[in-house]
Amino acid sequence: MTSSDLQEQLNIKALNLLQGDADKIEKLIEIQMENLDTRYCPLYEEVLDTQVYGFSKEVDFAIRAGLVSEPVGKQLISNLERNLSVLYEAMNNKTQAAE
Amino acid sequence: MTSSDLQEQLNIKALNLLQGDADKIEKLIEIQMENLDTRYCPLYEEVLDTQVYGFSKEVDFAIRAGLVSEPVGKQLISNLERNLSVLYEAMNNKTQAAE
Repeated sequence: MTSSDLQEQLNIKALNLLQGDADKIEKLIEIQMENLDTRYCPLYEEVLDTQVYGFSKEVDFAIRAGLVSEPVGKQLISNLERNLSVLYEAMNNKTQAAE
Repeated sequence: MTSSDLQEQLNIKALNLLQGDADKIEKLIEIQMENLDTRYCPLYEEVLDTQVYGFSKEVDFAIRAGLVSEPVGKQLISNLERNLSVLYEAMNNKTQAAE
């Protein structure tokens, strides 16, 4: 294997790992979205924030280690943050409607 | 450059990045240790826990991406956790002495 093959292999592996981690958090967001009416858990917000923080540290490391380009890494994080803010808005609307 | 040279280079780079991040948290722990008497800040504990959590996500990713061996990665985290628990014990002793 040449060094550029190896670099490509490592980059693909890193991206797959990050995408897998993002998908797991995405799943948590979806579950909460589906359960806004029935099983609202106030700790969910903190759990999701912590998960996204940890994920952003992973992505930041992958960029610095030269495995993922900065635009691709930032995109992964901003996708998650966008979905998270949609969830928070829906949660806020629920809370206000209940008052 | 051969692929094994590249792998070695990437592994060294990853380890240096992680060690640098660990050193920064270590520095935060030392600062708080030195200021137990004068500038105790209750939020420090939460800040440090968050930093160590983020660091453990970085290390975990580096292991999964094949850049750092599991024993080396775990050692980096356990070093930090040990120093953190020394700090927390000292903080607890201070609090009890003040009561």
